[in-house]
Amino acid sequence: MNTDCGIDAMNFSLPRLFLPIDDLAAARGIKIDKLRFGLGLESMSVCDVDEDVVTLAAEATWKLIQKEKLKPHEIGRIYLGTESAVDAAKPSTTYVLKILETKLEVIYGPRSLSHCDVLDMTFACVGAVDAMQNSLDWVRHNKDRKAIVIASDVAKYAKGSPGEYTQGAGAVAILISHSPRILTLDSDFGTSVESTSDFFKPRRVFDKSQLLMDASKLIGKKISKPDAIKYLDSISEGFWGTPEVYIDQFLEYPIFDGPYSNDCYVARVNEALFRYEKTTGHNILNDWNGMVFHLPYAFQGRRMWPEISIDQYKKQGRLNEIETSLGKLESEVGDRKLLAKTWSKTDDFKKYVKKHIAPGELASQHIGNMYTGSIFMSLLSTLLVYQKEGINRGNNRIGFLSYGSGSKSKVFSGVLQGSFKNQMQGIDLFEVINSRVKIDFKTYDDLHQRKLDVPISRADNFKLKSIGVEDVKLGYRNYEIE
Amino acid sequence: MNTDCGIDAMNFSLPRLFLPIDDLAAARGIKIDKLRFGLGLESMSVCDVDEDVVTLAAEATWKLIQKEKLKPHEIGRIYLGTESAVDAAKPSTTYVLKILETKLEVIYGPRSLSHCDVLDMTFACVGAVDAMQNSLDWVRHNKDRKAIVIASDVAKYAKGSPGEYTQGAGAVAILISHSPRILTLDSDFGTSVESTSDFFKPRRVFDKSQLLMDASKLIGKKISKPDAIKYLDSISEGFWGTPEVYIDQFLEYPIFDGPYSNDCYVARVNEALFRYEKTTGHNILNDWNGMVFHLPYAFQGRRMWPEISIDQYKKQGRLNEIETSLGKLESEVGDRKLLAKTWSKTDDFKKYVKKHIAPGELASQHIGNMYTGSIFMSLLSTLLVYQKEGINRGNNRIGFLSYGSGSKSKVFSGVLQGSFKNQMQGIDLFEVINSRVKIDFKTYDDLHQRKLDVPISRADNFKLKSIGVEDVKLGYRNYEIE
Repeated sequence: MNTDCGIDAMNFSLPRLFLPIDDLAAARGIKIDKLRFGLGLESMSVCDVDEDVVTLAAEATWKLIQKEKLKPHEIGRIYLGTESAVDAAKPSTTYVLKILETKLEVIYGPRSLSHCDVLDMTFACVGAVDAMQNSLDWVRHNKDRKAIVIASDVAKYAKGSPGEYTQGAGAVAILISHSPRILTLDSDFGTSVESTSDFFKPRRVFDKSQLLMDASKLIGKKISKPDAIKYLDSISEGFWGTPEVYIDQFLEYPIFDGPYSNDCYVARVNEALFRYEKTTGHNILNDWNGMVFHLPYAFQGRRMWPEISIDQYKKQGRLNEIETSLGKLESEVGDRKLLAKTWSKTDDFKKYVKKHIAPGELASQHIGNMYTGSIFMSLLSTLLVYQKEGINRGNNRIGFLSYGSGSKSKVFSGVLQGSFKNQMQGIDLFEVINSRVKIDFKTYDDLHQRKLDVPISRADNFKLKSIGVEDVKLGYRNYEIE
Repeated sequence: MNTDCGIDAMNFSLPRLFLPIDDLAAARGIKIDKLRFGLGLESMSVCDVDEDVVTLAAEATWKLIQKEKLKPHEIGRIYLGTESAVDAAKPSTTYVLKILETKLEVIYGPRSLSHCDVLDMTFACVGAVDAMQNSLDWVRHNKDRKAIVIASDVAKYAKGSPGEYTQGAGAVAILISHSPRILTLDSDFGTSVESTSDFFKPRRVFDKSQLLMDASKLIGKKISKPDAIKYLDSISEGFWGTPEVYIDQFLEYPIFDGPYSNDCYVARVNEALFRYEKTTGHNILNDWNGMVFHLPYAFQGRRMWPEISIDQYKKQGRLNEIETSLGKLESEVGDRKLLAKTWSKTDDFKKYVKKHIAPGELASQHIGNMYTGSIFMSLLSTLLVYQKEGINRGNNRIGFLSYGSGSKSKVFSGVLQGSFKNQMQGIDLFEVINSRVKIDFKTYDDLHQRKLDVPISRADNFKLKSIGVEDVKLGYRNYEIE
C-alpha cells in the first residue's frame, strides 16, 4: 500500500453573478456590521437561471482536466459530494459525465469516459470529504489510479430566514493521485457521528384536499372537505389528478436551527479531533501549521476554534498560555463558552487567526456557503494566499476540520508539498471573483423567486438549456456547451 | 494489502405485508400469464404505513448485528445504497444509526456507534454495489476493519403504469471483513457508464399560478392568470405562500421507459463484462459456476442472459454450442435479438437457467423489485437454495451482474467459501416470506394512495412513529422501537 497519495491538482468554478452583502442587509433590515464583522461576509455568489450544481461541477472538472492535460483513460472515477442533487435516483454526476464526454469527443471520440466509475454521495456538507476519503482508499490500491472528486452545491435558504445571508454556490474539483504535487493525505481520519436535526431537507407533506380548500378560500369560493375530495376524484391527470391523498413538496430550503447547528459543529469536531489524535498520534497544537475548516460562513472557523481548542490546551496542560493572553486565570473568567469568547478578543488570538485561519476565509467572504465545496474552497484560498504572499509552507502539516449537519465530522491532515506553488499557477480564483457580474437586490430577489426565465448573463462554457416536459423525458435535464 | 476480503455475513428484512400478483393482475386487467410466466412474479412486498427505507435498513442491520454478535466498536462504517432516501441532505443512514444505538444502549450505553462512518450513496439500483466496493477498499487497508453495507429501497410506481406490477421493497445488510465466511470478492470490478434517461426521479415543476387557476376551474370559479398572481401575492405562509413562482413536487414514482431501460441494461452489462474479463483474466463461460443478477423483476436475468452471453460465445469461438442446441446455424435464425430469443426457448438453455440463474430468482418472485437490494437478495436466495438442496458450491466462482439506471453496470466475481452453509443457518428468508400478512387489492390501493393513517399490521421491531409538523422539526422523522 502506497501512503504517498493525496491532492495532486485542484480547480474551481463559481456562478457568474454576485450580490454585495450590503444590498441584502439593507433590503432585509439587518445591521451590516453583524454580517461583515460578525460573520465575515462581503458578497455572495448567485446562480443565473442556466446554472446549477451540474454546470458548476462540470466546469470545475473541465478546468481541472484541461489544466492537468488529463487523458480520459487516466480518470478512473468521478465522485461527487453534493446535497443539491438534481434527481433522486440518477446521480448528478452522470449529467456531468455527459458534458465532459461531449467536450472530449473532438479529440477522443464518443463516450471516452465510459470506463469511469461515477457516483453521488450525500451527507450534507461533509459528503465530498467522504468522496475524497473513499477515493484515496481506491487510489492507494494501485499505483496507476487517479480519481476526480467534485464538491458542488447551491446553498439556497428561505427568503428572510437567518440562513439567507450565508447563501452561496460553487464547485471545487480535485485530482487524487500518487505522489501528489499539492498535499499528501494521511489514511487515518478521525470521525464522529450523531443523528441530529440541526439542518435537513425533508419533503413538505400537504393534504391535497386541504390544499384545494385553501385555494378555494384564497379565491373567494370556500368549499368543504367532502366537496374538495369529490372534485379531486373527478380528475386523474396532472398535479391535482395524482391518485395520492398527499402532495410532497420539494424545497431546496433547509429546515435548520442555527445555534443548535453551531453546537453540533463544535461537539462533532471536538469528538473527531479526539479520535484523530488518538489514531494518528498527532498533537494538533504542535503539529498543525495551518487549518482548513468547513465554513458555512467565512468566520465560522475563527468563531469555533476558541471553544474547540480550549479542550486541547487543557488536555496538554497548556491552559496557562491562554491565561497569559487573557491576563487572568480561567477561574476568574467563567465557564468554557465565556472563556472562549474572552480569549477570542485578545491580540494573541487575533495573531493566531491571521496566521492559521484567515487565509482560508478569504474566498468564502466573497462566495458564501458552498456546502460540500466550502472546505475545499477554504484549502484553495489558503494555498493561493500562501502563494501570493510568498509564504513557504512546504512540508508543513495542514489540518482539516470538516462538518456535515445531521451530523458528522471528519478530522484529518496532510503534508503540504513544496511543489504546491507551481500547482497554483494559473488558478485565477480571485480574478474570477472580481470579474463576476454584479446584480442589484431586485434581480437577486427575482432569481430567488424563480421569476426569470432568460439568463441575465452569458454562459462561458456549459449551461442548462431546458428541462423535459412530457412523457418519458419529463424532468430530464438538457445541458448545452457554448 | 489483504485480498482475502469479502462478505462474511448477511441478513435481510421485508415489509410485513404482501399482495398476490393475481389480485393486481385482475384489478388492472393484465393477463396473469404475462406476469407469472413472462416475468416470474408471484407476489409483491408492500410497506405498511409505519415502514419505510429506514425501518427496513435498521431491521436488516439489527438482525445482522445480533446474529453475528457484533460489538459496536467492531463496526467501522455503515454505508447505505438507496434511491429512496427520506431527506435530500441528512443521510437516511443517520436515522438508522440512531435506531441501532437505541437498541445497543442497554448493553453499551449511549452513542455506542459515534465513531462509525455513515453515508448514503446514490446511483439508482447499483448504489449499494458502489457502497460495497468502496467498503471493500477500506476494509482491505487494515486487518481489523469491518464494514456494514446496507441496500434498502421501496420501489413504488404510478398506479396503472407498466412498473406497478414490478413493485417491491426490502433491505439486505452485509458484513464486509477479512477472511469472510461466505464469499471472497475480487478487488477488480468491470465498470461501464453512460448518461441515459431510461429511469430517473426528477422533481415535477409546476407554475403556482397555473395550479391555482386549475384549482379554480376544478371548483367552478375560473380565475385569470393576473387574478391568480394577485391572490398568491396576498399570502406569505404555507404551500400557497412560498415566494417562488414554481412548486416542485417530489414523487417517488420514477419516469421510465421500460424497453429502453432493458436495452441500457444489456448494453452496460455487456460493456462491463468485457472490461471485467480484460482486467481479471477470467472467462465467464468457463470460470463462473453461478450468476447473480440485478433483478428489477424475477426473470430479468434469464431474459437478458441469452443476448448478453451470445457475444461471449462468439468471442470464444463457441457459437457452435448454441447452434447445436438450436439444431440450426446462426445464419438460419436471424439477427442477434432473434437468435437470443430462439436459443432461450431450447431445453439446453432451460437447463442452464435452472442450474445457474433460477436459485437467485426465487426470493424476487415473492418480493418484487428491491432496487439496490435486488442483487443482494438474489445472492441470499441463491445461497439458501444451495443450502436447502445440499448443493456444495464451495470454492466455486460466482459472477455478479449489477445495473443501475441512468446508467451504470459493475460486473465482478467472488469465490464461495465452504463455510457459507453455516452462515446461512438461521436465515429464515422463505419462512418470513410465507408468514407475511396478505392484503386484498382494496387495501393495497389505499396504501398506494396513502389513504391510511393507522398501520394495518403490528410492527415487530422498529416503526416510523411520526413526522414533525412545525418549525425546526418540520419533516423530521421519529422512529420508535416496539
